[in-house]
Parts: sequence; C-alpha cells; structure tokens
Amino acid sequence: MNVVTDWTALIRDVPDYPKPGILFKDITPLLADHAAFTQVVDELGEGLAFDKVVGIEARGFILAAPVAYRSGAGFVPVRKEGKLPSETYEASYDLEYGSATIEVHADAFESGDRVLIVDDVLATGGTARAAVELVRRTGAQVVAVSFLMELSFLSGRDRLPGLEVRTLLTV
Amino acid sequence: MNVVTDWTALIRDVPDYPKPGILFKDITPLLADHAAFTQVVDELGEGLAFDKVVGIEARGFILAAPVAYRSGAGFVPVRKEGKLPSETYEASYDLEYGSATIEVHADAFESGDRVLIVDDVLATGGTARAAVELVRRTGAQVVAVSFLMELSFLSGRDRLPGLEVRTLLTV
Repeated sequence: MNVVTDWTALIRDVPDYPKPGILFKDITPLLADHAAFTQVVDELGEGLAFDKVVGIEARGFILAAPVAYRSGAGFVPVRKEGKLPSETYEASYDLEYGSATIEVHADAFESGDRVLIVDDVLATGGTARAAVELVRRTGAQVVAVSFLMELSFLSGRDRLPGLEVRTLLTV
Repeated sequence: MNVVTDWTALIRDVPDYPKPGILFKDITPLLADHAAFTQVVDELGEGLAFDKVVGIEARGFILAAPVAYRSGAGFVPVRKEGKLPSETYEASYDLEYGSATIEVHADAFESGDRVLIVDDVLATGGTARAAVELVRRTGAQVVAVSFLMELSFLSGRDRLPGLEVRTLLTV
C-alpha cells in the first residue's frame, strides 16, 4: 500500500465527551480530508473478497458505503431498532447501563453472499458481535470485520472468535 | 450518462410505515445492488464542482460518503443534536409534531470551500434548508443539493430558493 498521508494525525482527541473523564477519538477531521478518507476506505476492504458490505448505523455508514462503492459490492445497513421498514431480524447487546438492539432486513442478502462488516471503532465488541449474528441468521457468511480503530484495552477482539478482524489503528 | 440498470425498480413500496396510511419508499434493495448503487452515487455528483460533500444523518451518509470518495472531495457529517463532539453550529426545523435540531462542527470547512449537500429524500425541505443554513454559517458556500428522490407534492424545492436542486427521481 502507498501511504499517501499520515491519516492518524487527523484523529482529534476531544476530552470529556460524551461524559467527564472520557477522551473521545473524533474522526471528522480525517473524513474531511479527501486523501486520508480515501486511504482509510481503501485499506478497510483491500485484499478481501466479498459480495456485500454491512455498515453499522450511523458512523459505520460513512466508511462502509464507499468500501462497497469501490469494491463491486452492494451495501446493507444494520440499523437501530425500528428504523428498517420491512421484515427484520434483531439482536441485542449490553451497554454500560442497559442494552441496545440492532436490526437487519431479513431479505438483505442473497443465498451464499460473502459479507464484510465495517464500523469505525472496535470497543467492547458488543455491537460487532450482534451484527455478525444478524448476518449469520439470514444465511449469509461473514468473511471479515474491518474497523478504523481498535481500543485494545477493551478486548473486543475476543468477542469475534474465528473471524478475520482487521483494524487500521490500535489505541 | 449510461443507464446500466433501471434502479428505480429497486425502490420498494412498504405500506403503513412508519405509520398507517403512509407508503414508505424503501431504498435498501437499491443499495444492495452494486450496479444500481454505483449509478445513483455517480449521478448525484456528476458535473458539479465541489470541495466537500455534506451527508445528513443517517441515510444521507450512505449516499454522500461515496460521492465524496469518487469526487476528490472530503466528507462532512451533519448530525442529530448531541452527536458531534467538538464545537458546533445548530439549526432547528419543524416536524409534523414538534421540531428537530441538527448540527455541524464549526470548523468543518476551510475558507472558500464549495459544498454539495446530499440526502436520500426531499420531502418538505425542512432538513435540507437547515443544512444549507448550517453550511453558510461556517462561511462555506453551498453549490448544490442532491437527492435520490423528490416527493414533489410536498413542494420542498420551494424551501431551497436560488440553489441548484438535483433530484434523480420524482414521485
């Protein structure tokens, strides 16, 4: 791969967001820089073979959709509860307080589809684990899960056993 | 433009969503079809000159991000209230019941940036109008607003005077 830009310098630390004591990694300066955005999108999908790219609402959409566009693949959204209009499968996962539910259309994939799941951050792995389950429930096959960033101290990788997990940056 | 596929046939009517009596236009079958997705993304930006593409959360991200990717432009998210971590401008608009607020980072653009705003549906134009105001408040210039679909009976176009408004399909 050609390194056209040091895109890691375009991730901005925002202290105390979303709450005091948390240092938030803000990727919006990276997205606004075409060279950096292109490089990240290219690296998320490069060398993998897949028919569909799943993006996880909402920031995941921003990375997953151009990966699909550049790769000859279709795009499938995994959305928060109640946002998809047709018949869905749903999966829940634990949050720090309570739980959240995500959904995918039951007919989103064709039989035998190879699926790449893309999201911005691998933290505890709860969301990604739920997305993997959703794809498998439709009968499609998850070939890899790609993230821009991995917060390795949260060990999210352990929730995705037996899968190729690609992360472009570990923090 | 080469018409590689009749993508309009891939928009699915879902009756009574999000509530009884509403016929929802579901674009997910279109997004899942690579040829159709590519054609729509290409048509949204073709022939326009811009430095940044604004996507409006959440479905707008799916179309706007690949438009930026293919066009040498950066991507800027306009998000729902409280989702952007740094300093923002905000704008509110009326909904059928109540109102909603969207935000953009105050430093999202560089001086003189030409901006294309992309969203999936032009309905009443309230969201798009608010997004135009947000971009202008930063000092950047809106060159056009592109939508996949226009619900012409809602006259949203009237809320975007003096702007190039591109819609790929009118329903």
